Amino acid sequence: MLSRLSQSIEPFHVMEIVKQADQLQQQGRDVIHLSIGEPDFPLPEPVAQALTQAIGAGKTRYTAALGLQELRETIAHFYDSRFGATVSPGQVVITSGASTGLMYACLALINPGDEVLLCDPGYPCNKTFVQTAGGVVRTIQVSEDNNFQPTLAEVQEAWTPKTQGILLASPSNPTGTRISSNVLNDIVDWVATQGGFIIMDEIYQLLCYGSQPRTLLSQSPSGQTRDHCVVINSFSKYFGMTGLRLGWMVVPEALLTPIEKLAQNLNICPSTPAQWAALACFKQETLDICEARRAAFGNRREFLLRELPNVGLHAGSNPDGAFYVYAHAPYGSSQYCSDLLQTQAVCTVPGKDFSQKEGEAMFRISYANSLERIEQALQRMGQFNCREI
Amino acid sequence: MLSRLSQSIEPFHVMEIVKQADQLQQQGRDVIHLSIGEPDFPLPEPVAQALTQAIGAGKTRYTAALGLQELRETIAHFYDSRFGATVSPGQVVITSGASTGLMYACLALINPGDEVLLCDPGYPCNKTFVQTAGGVVRTIQVSEDNNFQPTLAEVQEAWTPKTQGILLASPSNPTGTRISSNVLNDIVDWVATQGGFIIMDEIYQLLCYGSQPRTLLSQSPSGQTRDHCVVINSFSKYFGMTGLRLGWMVVPEALLTPIEKLAQNLNICPSTPAQWAALACFKQETLDICEARRAAFGNRREFLLRELPNVGLHAGSNPDGAFYVYAHAPYGSSQYCSDLLQTQAVCTVPGKDFSQKEGEAMFRISYANSLERIEQALQRMGQFNCREI
Ligand SMILES: Cc1ncc(COP(=O)(O)O)c(C=O)c1O
Ligand SMILES: Cc1ncc(COP(=O)(O)O)c(C=O)c1O
Repeated sequence: MLSRLSQSIEPFHVMEIVKQADQLQQQGRDVIHLSIGEPDFPLPEPVAQALTQAIGAGKTRYTAALGLQELRETIAHFYDSRFGATVSPGQVVITSGASTGLMYACLALINPGDEVLLCDPGYPCNKTFVQTAGGVVRTIQVSEDNNFQPTLAEVQEAWTPKTQGILLASPSNPTGTRISSNVLNDIVDWVATQGGFIIMDEIYQLLCYGSQPRTLLSQSPSGQTRDHCVVINSFSKYFGMTGLRLGWMVVPEALLTPIEKLAQNLNICPSTPAQWAALACFKQETLDICEARRAAFGNRREFLLRELPNVGLHAGSNPDGAFYVYAHAPYGSSQYCSDLLQTQAVCTVPGKDFSQKEGEAMFRISYANSLERIEQALQRMGQFNCREI
Repeated sequence: MLSRLSQSIEPFHVMEIVKQADQLQQQGRDVIHLSIGEPDFPLPEPVAQALTQAIGAGKTRYTAALGLQELRETIAHFYDSRFGATVSPGQVVITSGASTGLMYACLALINPGDEVLLCDPGYPCNKTFVQTAGGVVRTIQVSEDNNFQPTLAEVQEAWTPKTQGILLASPSNPTGTRISSNVLNDIVDWVATQGGFIIMDEIYQLLCYGSQPRTLLSQSPSGQTRDHCVVINSFSKYFGMTGLRLGWMVVPEALLTPIEKLAQNLNICPSTPAQWAALACFKQETLDICEARRAAFGNRREFLLRELPNVGLHAGSNPDGAFYVYAHAPYGSSQYCSDLLQTQAVCTVPGKDFSQKEGEAMFRISYANSLERIEQALQRMGQFNCREI
């Protein structure tokens, strides 16, 4: 009675590790989590206040499927003020997290049998979004030499007559790396010549270090329009609102009505109090809090990248975004992460969930934990790695 | 570039009416809405309190994909205490509204090309859930004589070798009618003999009048197990939590892992503060508030059913659930509802969204509005209908 789709979805292998970690914790072990895919900060205070106010004011009924007009306008305006990008409020769709945005984009763009390119390593759920729409995943094995992001040549090589589009993420999970503007522009322009689409996941957009955040929606140097591109974003990471399940997407005009119909039918609307709370995200006060948090992430990242070699570990490529370092495992990462957990009570994520092909070679360290805990974890990792070597 | 799925979804025709109503309101007309599919009550106070507390306590991060263990246990226990039905906490899946439950059920049970039976009239989104999973909708034209619910003979007649299951709703939207226990038991047993599944939407379960609420999960008189049945429910209607986007489903053991994988991949988790708030729903204090509201709905229903004939209108069948009356339109309902709105500023919903075949004959009146407003609306409807006759 089970559908082939539901049978074909791989379980998250990280769940095994998390279960082991829970058991250790119940046994009284002091487990340090470097496994987590969400900020360790609470809601920014103005957001929590706006949320509480919305509830007090009874803003708890259904909204329009595409979201509150006011929030759509605020987001459109933010693209202008922050990135100089022109986005009309009508192109902004409020979603129940980037998850739902990815779902709408795939359902609106993919026909059964269409091929869609995904990068390996990448966010494991992407495969399921594509397959739910009946799409067939084709993988681009991205290389550490290119920041774990695809090159134009790789996209061209992977593209077949059946390929309809590509899903990109920058910064990426699990690698924390970004695609360069030049390469991205070339890919965007070339995919347009093929009549294909691009789904661009910018969920970690504002969490980057060293150089300014970017968006695909900035003016293309070639002047090529971007109406074959859908941009996905979320309040989960930079704004620390994971459990509130709210995100947004920016869609070309032609997709608006199809996506409105999908949203009306499949979800009715995104969470109403969360939408009212999200309005507070774009206040200067909140942005200041989030920038301070970004600075904290930046410090942890710097510390981690500096210290990793001292404990015998090496980061893959240059992770300058999100809160992840994708590092080389000393030996098979499923075993390594399990050993690290059992002996040192440090919880990291083996690469298997993110990469079919090279997952055993890599593991993911999240720095969504305090500097103190990260320091402690590194000490423990050093003990383990040195003992083993 | 648009997928066939997204192109094939019908827009909600009610949106046209709602747009017209908005325009009239902007012109200063006093529009009475009998069009709304959500309770006119605010959050029950204990739920609002629990929600505010959860936010204050920082309960705003991701939860497990299947939801908070505590909430799953509370719901399982409620089936026992309220219905004497045995449900294990492990079978309860917390979802982002019944919408997401319907989606998971369809994705877990339907393969592309599978036929699924839906009732006409019915909830318009059901078609989209089935089609998203690649399923093919087959319609059972249910009859007013049978309370707009299918009979066993109708199910048997509609069932083909390609049919894999049926979606039922009781009480139903738009008709407000329930299926009798006997007919339901017979259908459940017969579908089991065919190796088919049943998706049972019980979102309006606790909103019924005259006789006790029921669940498919009660012991079957035939002793037939119900492990081919998925039950969908929600906090939206009885608990007045529409905009919080929270629901649940009860699934057979065999579906748990597939649905957990779907949930992990497609949504990560349901809203965290909403889940904590939902725990307060099952306190006696909240249940008392909701029962008082149900009594208010009951009074409005009674008034409406008594007065409709006096204004020349007739309810279809016996609507003893939800907050809808599905009534015969004096003439084509698209025109009738539009005329009623334009001349009398009473907003109702034409049948077209709910029924492909007989939608023009019927329209939906929602009594999710105060008795005073319903009285006023009936006066206006009387003026219009008598003028027209
Ligand atoms: C790359 C990426 N995209 C999308 C998501 C989905 O996040 P959400 O649905 O909370 O916005 C995640 C979450 O970890 C992610 O890492
Ligand atoms: C019959 C029926 N099922 C499901 C839903 C979805 O409700 P929600 O997702 O808010 O739980 C509705 C909403 O109107 C409905 O009428």
